[in-house]
Amino acid sequence: MSDKVPRDPADDYTREMAQKRRDFVREHTGVALAHVGRYTFDPALLPGNIENFIGAAQVPIGLAGPLHIRGEHAQGEFYVPMATTEGTLVASYNRGMRLLNECGGVRTTIVEQYMQRSPAFLFDDALAAREFGQWVQQNLDQIRAAAEATTHVGHLVHIYQYAIGPLRHLRFNYTTGDAAGQNMTGKATLAACEWIAAHYPGPTKFLLSGNMDTDKKHSQLNMLVTRGRRVVAEAVIRREPLKRIMGVDTAELFAMRQVSNTGAFLAGSSNNGSHAANGLTALFIACGQDVANVAESHAGVVYSQLLPDGDYYWSITLPSLIVGTYGGGTALATQRECLEMLGCHGAGKADKFAEICAGVVLAGETSLSAAVIHGDWVASHDQLGRNRK
Amino acid sequence: MSDKVPRDPADDYTREMAQKRRDFVREHTGVALAHVGRYTFDPALLPGNIENFIGAAQVPIGLAGPLHIRGEHAQGEFYVPMATTEGTLVASYNRGMRLLNECGGVRTTIVEQYMQRSPAFLFDDALAAREFGQWVQQNLDQIRAAAEATTHVGHLVHIYQYAIGPLRHLRFNYTTGDAAGQNMTGKATLAACEWIAAHYPGPTKFLLSGNMDTDKKHSQLNMLVTRGRRVVAEAVIRREPLKRIMGVDTAELFAMRQVSNTGAFLAGSSNNGSHAANGLTALFIACGQDVANVAESHAGVVYSQLLPDGDYYWSITLPSLIVGTYGGGTALATQRECLEMLGCHGAGKADKFAEICAGVVLAGETSLSAAVIHGDWVASHDQLGRNRK
Amino acid sequence: MSDKVPRDPADDYTREMAQKRRDFVREHTGVALAHVGRYTFDPALLPGNIENFIGAAQVPIGLAGPLHIRGEHAQGEFYVPMATTEGTLVASYNRGMRLLNECGGVRTTIVEQYMQRSPAFLFDDALAAREFGQWVQQNLDQIRAAAEATTHVGHLVHIYQYAIGPLRHLRFNYTTGDAAGQNMTGKATLAACEWIAAHYPGPTKFLLSGNMDTDKKHSQLNMLVTRGRRVVAEAVIRREPLKRIMGVDTAELFAMRQVSNTGAFLAGSSNNGSHAANGLTALFIACGQDVANVAESHAGVVYSQLLPDGDYYWSITLPSLIVGTYGGGTALATQRECLEMLGCHGAGKADKFAEICAGVVLAGETSLSAAVIHGDWVASHDQLGRNRK
Amino acid sequence: MSDKVPRDPADDYTREMAQKRRDFVREHTGVALAHVGRYTFDPALLPGNIENFIGAAQVPIGLAGPLHIRGEHAQGEFYVPMATTEGTLVASYNRGMRLLNECGGVRTTIVEQYMQRSPAFLFDDALAAREFGQWVQQNLDQIRAAAEATTHVGHLVHIYQYAIGPLRHLRFNYTTGDAAGQNMTGKATLAACEWIAAHYPGPTKFLLSGNMDTDKKHSQLNMLVTRGRRVVAEAVIRREPLKRIMGVDTAELFAMRQVSNTGAFLAGSSNNGSHAANGLTALFIACGQDVANVAESHAGVVYSQLLPDGDYYWSITLPSLIVGTYGGGTALATQRECLEMLGCHGAGKADKFAEICAGVVLAGETSLSAAVIHGDWVASHDQLGRNRK
Repeated sequence: MSDKVPRDPADDYTREMAQKRRDFVREHTGVALAHVGRYTFDPALLPGNIENFIGAAQVPIGLAGPLHIRGEHAQGEFYVPMATTEGTLVASYNRGMRLLNECGGVRTTIVEQYMQRSPAFLFDDALAAREFGQWVQQNLDQIRAAAEATTHVGHLVHIYQYAIGPLRHLRFNYTTGDAAGQNMTGKATLAACEWIAAHYPGPTKFLLSGNMDTDKKHSQLNMLVTRGRRVVAEAVIRREPLKRIMGVDTAELFAMRQVSNTGAFLAGSSNNGSHAANGLTALFIACGQDVANVAESHAGVVYSQLLPDGDYYWSITLPSLIVGTYGGGTALATQRECLEMLGCHGAGKADKFAEICAGVVLAGETSLSAAVIHGDWVASHDQLGRNRK
Repeated sequence: MSDKVPRDPADDYTREMAQKRRDFVREHTGVALAHVGRYTFDPALLPGNIENFIGAAQVPIGLAGPLHIRGEHAQGEFYVPMATTEGTLVASYNRGMRLLNECGGVRTTIVEQYMQRSPAFLFDDALAAREFGQWVQQNLDQIRAAAEATTHVGHLVHIYQYAIGPLRHLRFNYTTGDAAGQNMTGKATLAACEWIAAHYPGPTKFLLSGNMDTDKKHSQLNMLVTRGRRVVAEAVIRREPLKRIMGVDTAELFAMRQVSNTGAFLAGSSNNGSHAANGLTALFIACGQDVANVAESHAGVVYSQLLPDGDYYWSITLPSLIVGTYGGGTALATQRECLEMLGCHGAGKADKFAEICAGVVLAGETSLSAAVIHGDWVASHDQLGRNRK
Repeated sequence: MSDKVPRDPADDYTREMAQKRRDFVREHTGVALAHVGRYTFDPALLPGNIENFIGAAQVPIGLAGPLHIRGEHAQGEFYVPMATTEGTLVASYNRGMRLLNECGGVRTTIVEQYMQRSPAFLFDDALAAREFGQWVQQNLDQIRAAAEATTHVGHLVHIYQYAIGPLRHLRFNYTTGDAAGQNMTGKATLAACEWIAAHYPGPTKFLLSGNMDTDKKHSQLNMLVTRGRRVVAEAVIRREPLKRIMGVDTAELFAMRQVSNTGAFLAGSSNNGSHAANGLTALFIACGQDVANVAESHAGVVYSQLLPDGDYYWSITLPSLIVGTYGGGTALATQRECLEMLGCHGAGKADKFAEICAGVVLAGETSLSAAVIHGDWVASHDQLGRNRK
Repeated sequence: MSDKVPRDPADDYTREMAQKRRDFVREHTGVALAHVGRYTFDPALLPGNIENFIGAAQVPIGLAGPLHIRGEHAQGEFYVPMATTEGTLVASYNRGMRLLNECGGVRTTIVEQYMQRSPAFLFDDALAAREFGQWVQQNLDQIRAAAEATTHVGHLVHIYQYAIGPLRHLRFNYTTGDAAGQNMTGKATLAACEWIAAHYPGPTKFLLSGNMDTDKKHSQLNMLVTRGRRVVAEAVIRREPLKRIMGVDTAELFAMRQVSNTGAFLAGSSNNGSHAANGLTALFIACGQDVANVAESHAGVVYSQLLPDGDYYWSITLPSLIVGTYGGGTALATQRECLEMLGCHGAGKADKFAEICAGVVLAGETSLSAAVIHGDWVASHDQLGRNRK
């Protein structure tokens, strides 16, 4: 019995090949994969999305909403598909949406957009690296042309440079339209680096990544200069509905904010808010995003003020929200349906989807923060969650 | 037409109610959710996992492996289900597994395990907070008893204390067996706080979270003192198979490591490796994990040395890998099958699953690092990925 | 003409040798060092403080105060010597002290004290490292005995362990009485490591520092678990004197605090306050501290709340304040006088001095924060500082 | 007896007034300040450097060197004045200089220079803040003109923008010639903000600092985008002299580097090197720098490679080295002499001084790293330091 996973070089994306591989799994592990094999889409859709396809994970989707969003791209009431296996998550976000709706909805604003690749160029000494850096700055137009020749959509906005010893980390910042853009920018940056290597009047050696992308990783750098989209969700929470729906006062929320800030600052945390990762992950799975980008996307900065009338201004900024509505997993069956529910499938929709993500995150922040103060956090998990003793 | 999502308080977890809600979605958004509605499991399984259930996201699963693991809990050859929509991911991890296999497999070791809740206690001044801290230390046995009365599995190991002004952040560290344990520890910590509030000879006020958990968030604190499991994967990469399979030399990998370290350090990154988040997310989705924990779990520290004979010792330490094989989404249909494929479903299996996760991550590190050096990184995405221009 | 600095192996700490070296400097650089040579103390005091002594830097000292401190160790009115060359610094701290005095003085509390050394032990794999870690825990009493045999004052409280791959970073935490303790703990830790190497039933290899001390460096780790002393300064700022003395309102300060928190969090800053380094450096130079420890000591966490009556609770926590009143430079001529001014020279005084440092820092925070709001920040530097155009 | 420090509004910078204040100290504390009063410079020099002058701290200076520097601005052999009270410091740096000299000297390169002020502008919502940001970009020339009207030397290079909710943190980046430039840039930025407030077609409110400067504080931001000067010191350490002078092998240094990198990364440290703060502080005190800037200046990134021939390329990059040779304390008596020793007093010398600082730092890195490996670290402190037991 070979241990080699069966593949068909001629056409590997068929129900038959998937079945063969599930059979292979059964032979090697004794597990039948009955449910995994009962997917409903055509495997011919899958090239570019997966290799060695065997079936599909079915992740339950709950419906939250409506959420009233007053963005530039997302406007109106949205019903939000959230794919998760964590009890209370949908209910909690739902509660937050109700509060936001009663306060006039959530405003959302996209501040900027960049996707990065960061090659590192290596030289003999720091002086050579510095001179190279100046040359790059002087030849930016041609480097841009080389990069943009590989893409219809991507635009190279600027190259940040970070010098360490004889190294020059270059961080290429692109706008990438409605694609998340990691591959697009990888290809463009490679072309740019090859152009540089061919034209720089001196020896060059480069790595396509010097680990400053920082792809699939949280970093302070991402927070500072934006990876993906920098999106703000903000609302003025009125005292009355907050008290009625969640049982707490705005002054309590603001006092708690001071405590939370110390905790996040001292811990060296990626987010001084509560749980952006929860809402984003549920949206990402449902809507065909690259879920690994939760690593970057969950970062956030909460800024709030208690207003003189006792209402509570609350904002969360997601500095590195990475989403796409085109390419990647967005054309797959359930993923496409979920994007369509939000009016977010295809070209021209990524900004809208990003705003929805941010609005959902703020809803979740209100609900969990209030639950922590009110003391019903654990109780609700007891009631709705799989609390294992 | 009401905008309120239909629910049945008597029994909301039925195919009928899911259908009603999909109908509701169609009425409000015009989208039919045909694929979302074609799930294959019994909704009666879902209480504790989701609210307002409407169907399931189908995320394609690819098969990687075998991966030869030489752990304490995971031993032998493993075929790994990876749920993703990102082309090349499965192929890349697969290639890394082949390399590791040829080098004798990957060793995996779980170093420690903790799950946390971090209430903050508030006092009038720093002196009162410090005295409270001492009292907590002195009454640890009783506090532990109060916490553990709520759980059969959770064990309160120690309480770390972090003082800021008049605040005392307490960080309860539990072992939680085969559950990830966030809810278990939330409940236990609430009981502990209530015991404290009832018995402390002075006024107390607390928040069940002061944001130092740091739940669903990367933090330096998690990296330092472990959230979930701290797992190491390590291997000695031999020159010959590395060159043959990936076309690069061990000395090149080690030279690149020096560059990558500067990039990660300068960027303030959560991981000085390449893309742990990719492998973990694919495993988490397939295997019913709380995928939002990718926020914490993707952190890592690579440590390597070039050996005198030219072989390359390579380790990655995942300091905050959060997994469970019991509770949460692990009992759902496809999720359970995927865990079973790995021999990791149910009680007594979380350590094994954690080791597999770490082994898979190291495989991915080898493959991507070599691709960056060899220059086939972009080419493989062009061939296997959805490169949008 | 030799380029070798003259030294006298028999007795190098004399006025004559200092003069010889100044002559040597004049010969080699043409600079006479007239003022450097006019120190007033006996060089025979200097062994243990400096090598190749040539004279002294004269750093101007300004007098601030009185500052009313209500600490556990520092109680009453203090006149504070601040050595600096930065105009407005003394005036600004002085203004803050006046405000604090009018608000009843500053409360100060020392929360804990530790000094660290962090050897790293290296093993073949992670399993061996983990077993070593357990052995260390089991043999803590004997390790402590070996460490404490080298010191009368130092006490080894606990050893934190941080595992990375096949490495085990141990972080020895000592109390060190009235000495800052870096050397004391270095010596004790070396003895402990040698004991470990001699007794561990397996091969061991160690580095006396694996860079987790983190000596002479800011780190998140220092902030979390205290390096030196963790000291809190706190005060309730009353509206009236704040307005009268500094022209701003408590509500403005609190609103600004929300902004400052975002700036510090986003920048990845060591301190969310304003300029602790200024006051500490001036005190450290005047009082014979190891001024390089400003690197660690300047870290801080501000926590504040606006009280219902409009007064403003303000605290700053210095989590890694490193001071000593015995050893190091504390016995030198001007240094001793300045410590004596504060009643802080010699054994039994380090806690008192640490409290004074923290109180001074809070004074400076109030003054600069108000100046930023009020707009007189730049004007005061124009008037009092060396504003170079 | 009044508790008010005596001041003479007409002329406070006289020996008489200093004496009056020392008398005041004696009356209030019983301490005579005999040595503090024996300074040798004319107090009339001091306006702009200090208030309430009472005398001077005498900090011992040791002579290290020569150090052979091969920089762009610093070239040749330098004798280095180091003001410290920490035994072994001068000797250790001296040993490192000897090693560097035998390896052909240390190369130094200044990569870039910026000094910052970071006002925060506050708006009603994120959209207004974003529009403001665009307006700033569009009106950069006029903003620059307003800023530069206040200074002969300062040049506003660019304004970085960081958006959080309704806030816009602007970070003004200036070159400041031979002054450190904090005051110069404060004044220029205030003028710029006032120009903005007068001309922006909408309501504006600003704080002159939103805490992203990040003045007198370490931050990841400083490391990334340079505060002060970004300076590299590099050398190729040859095996033979390293072994002869320090008793260790280059391969040992490189193996240790891998360990040190994990320690620094895991600890969240400001520097993956050893003790840059030591050398910098000693130079800063001697040479009239603003010593509080050690908070920022001590950050560093070590990058090294073991060369095929066994020699060791070693670099340290100081990303936020803040120095000046004009203004501040540089004109005072001993400070000026020490700068003159280095040929660094006055206009046109700051680059040279920065290169010397970096070269000295690398010398210290070699010496301490070798001592940690060789095991003579503690022994040397026992012999040369004030090891208190």
